[in-house]
Amino acid sequence: MKYDFNFYNPTRIHFGVSSLDMLKNEMEKYGKKILLVYGKASIKKIGLYDKILNILEECNKEVYELSGVGSNPTYAKMMEGCRIARQEGVDFILAVGGGSVIDCSKGIAAGTYSVEDPFQKYYISNDKINNKVIPLGTVLTMVGTGSEMNTGSVITNTQLKLKKGHNYEEVMYPKFSILDPTLTYSVPQYQMLSGIFDIMSHLMEQYFSGDDDNVSDYLVEALLKSLIANTPKAIANPKDYEVRSNIMWASTMALNGLMGLSKTQDWMVHSIEHQVGAYTFCAHGMGLAAVSPSYYRYIYKDGLAKFVRFAKNVWNVDIIGKTDDEVAREGISCLEKFIAESQMVTNLSDLGVTTEMVHDIAYSTDLGGGYKAMTHEDVLEVLKEAM
Amino acid sequence: MKYDFNFYNPTRIHFGVSSLDMLKNEMEKYGKKILLVYGKASIKKIGLYDKILNILEECNKEVYELSGVGSNPTYAKMMEGCRIARQEGVDFILAVGGGSVIDCSKGIAAGTYSVEDPFQKYYISNDKINNKVIPLGTVLTMVGTGSEMNTGSVITNTQLKLKKGHNYEEVMYPKFSILDPTLTYSVPQYQMLSGIFDIMSHLMEQYFSGDDDNVSDYLVEALLKSLIANTPKAIANPKDYEVRSNIMWASTMALNGLMGLSKTQDWMVHSIEHQVGAYTFCAHGMGLAAVSPSYYRYIYKDGLAKFVRFAKNVWNVDIIGKTDDEVAREGISCLEKFIAESQMVTNLSDLGVTTEMVHDIAYSTDLGGGYKAMTHEDVLEVLKEAM
Repeated sequence: MKYDFNFYNPTRIHFGVSSLDMLKNEMEKYGKKILLVYGKASIKKIGLYDKILNILEECNKEVYELSGVGSNPTYAKMMEGCRIARQEGVDFILAVGGGSVIDCSKGIAAGTYSVEDPFQKYYISNDKINNKVIPLGTVLTMVGTGSEMNTGSVITNTQLKLKKGHNYEEVMYPKFSILDPTLTYSVPQYQMLSGIFDIMSHLMEQYFSGDDDNVSDYLVEALLKSLIANTPKAIANPKDYEVRSNIMWASTMALNGLMGLSKTQDWMVHSIEHQVGAYTFCAHGMGLAAVSPSYYRYIYKDGLAKFVRFAKNVWNVDIIGKTDDEVAREGISCLEKFIAESQMVTNLSDLGVTTEMVHDIAYSTDLGGGYKAMTHEDVLEVLKEAM
Repeated sequence: MKYDFNFYNPTRIHFGVSSLDMLKNEMEKYGKKILLVYGKASIKKIGLYDKILNILEECNKEVYELSGVGSNPTYAKMMEGCRIARQEGVDFILAVGGGSVIDCSKGIAAGTYSVEDPFQKYYISNDKINNKVIPLGTVLTMVGTGSEMNTGSVITNTQLKLKKGHNYEEVMYPKFSILDPTLTYSVPQYQMLSGIFDIMSHLMEQYFSGDDDNVSDYLVEALLKSLIANTPKAIANPKDYEVRSNIMWASTMALNGLMGLSKTQDWMVHSIEHQVGAYTFCAHGMGLAAVSPSYYRYIYKDGLAKFVRFAKNVWNVDIIGKTDDEVAREGISCLEKFIAESQMVTNLSDLGVTTEMVHDIAYSTDLGGGYKAMTHEDVLEVLKEAM
């Protein structure tokens, strides 16, 4: 794989315990009518909702609200946002929440003025934007998706039972993202761990591809090691500022484009999980955790050198006296042990996947793959192993 | 050190063997009058000059030229550029070369419409820009400074015997940078190695600070390891595309802002080298290589834990049965050995520093420091050790 890429990422990051102070300054750059998008009660419980409304009031904004965006944001909720935005002529979308809220906001930003059905146009047909886009900014309260510094969005169409991702063009980069690690302190441990595995999966999906040995490979290993070191600390003390900062920033860096440069990339684990999510509405990261070891055991022989490197560089597997195959399998076992010890989900049954569902999930999964081109039969085997 | 930072970097990167194809597209976004800034004959020798002039002609540009920008670009040369730019009403500056050409171009971009003396204003007084800035883009032909994706500029005032750096505000980010590794193939080995050590020094200057253990620390280790692995390969085969790509991209990443986030940083080695350069006009990276081991031996006790980590994580020093002090010293010895084995410069005498000069260099060096607050006497000790 020859190095060849374009990189451009103009999202402005304000990071730290005082970063919300920058919101006023940012909002003054945009028009009067704001669509505030958020999830459930949690931003009210931690007092963030009031703080933000006060800031918007100081800036003399007219605020419209779309609340109740759940995890695995639905197309129905996104279209509700589009209707408000079009009706009120919204100038700017402020997404306050985690990846689901941001992803939904991106869908609204692109979908409001779309003539065609936005799910069909963007999430199924992967078309380019040919209409006005509403600018957006984010205040992050949950970590994992990296959506705060990229153009990606994942939306679930419950009618079609399809969870689909789309990478929008660069106009969709959030204008700014406010990252205050203390806003993530109150996230329940299950959600925190789900987010952490989502980050790890983003990194592995980019890493396990190509036979190259490029800068991105080293950088991915670095972020994985930082996450592996910080996860037990975050479990022990969720209010350790530096630990939560490390996880928050690793999350943003994992999917802002830099880690995948010049990599062919895989993304089969995400593809499988999307359909697991469409059927069970499970926490995204937990779905990824349940699928990953089985998937990597299924494909590692096709990328043996990289799996050996993963074992050595990420998990410090001692290679002396072992075959490459043994080293590679030991690396995957380390990952599996980490998942179990961190109290993440280790099998799909625990997420509500039934043996009846497995066939439908496998055959509705988008195919692709890194080291191994996957068929629906292959996906079925992986799912059975992960039960 | 608590995490707290702002990050914004809008430079558009076109990377790869065909990246020059993007120049036309980029140039069409800007005005008619172009100041083409470059160094000596090398861009003509490799045919790049003709290619670029053809592209500019296709875009119907009026081209003005500033050539002969040498390493350690001088204030006199920068002012020559300012005069042309002002006289002709230049719309855009295209820097074709290495860091010296780009740094000089940034000085022109900010200095052309400055009412005050730009060297005094920016490089000595560190003032903010309060005049019109000319936008610029770059085509990189030499690797090391990272200037292609940041706002920094280093200019040497030969009259004052001062080599000073300045970080401009974000308006100074290059609009685009074209990074084609094949354009670096013809750089003489000495210059290539000087550039590589410059990158390593940028990384170490950011890493050796704070007692923190944050994401940036892991990322710096990753880039250092990539460079250590690729340097002997680049010496053995300067036309290995992937190797030169790795070095080129590590260089840009090392100083685009990401590696120093939430780090207090040091920069004393650069500060000392700036004055070595002002007195000897040596290759910047070689000056850094000659100074670094002596400097780090002088300060390591004040940052022992980090130097132990450096030894273990970057150089794989076996720690069993050794004291922390021994491990830390062994890490610095590994660095010194790498410098020698890579045929970089190991002492200042080889760069033309005389015992007579040493005192003046020491006492004209800007002070600062990471783990240890340095005095001029301390700098003198480091310089004597490095002779």
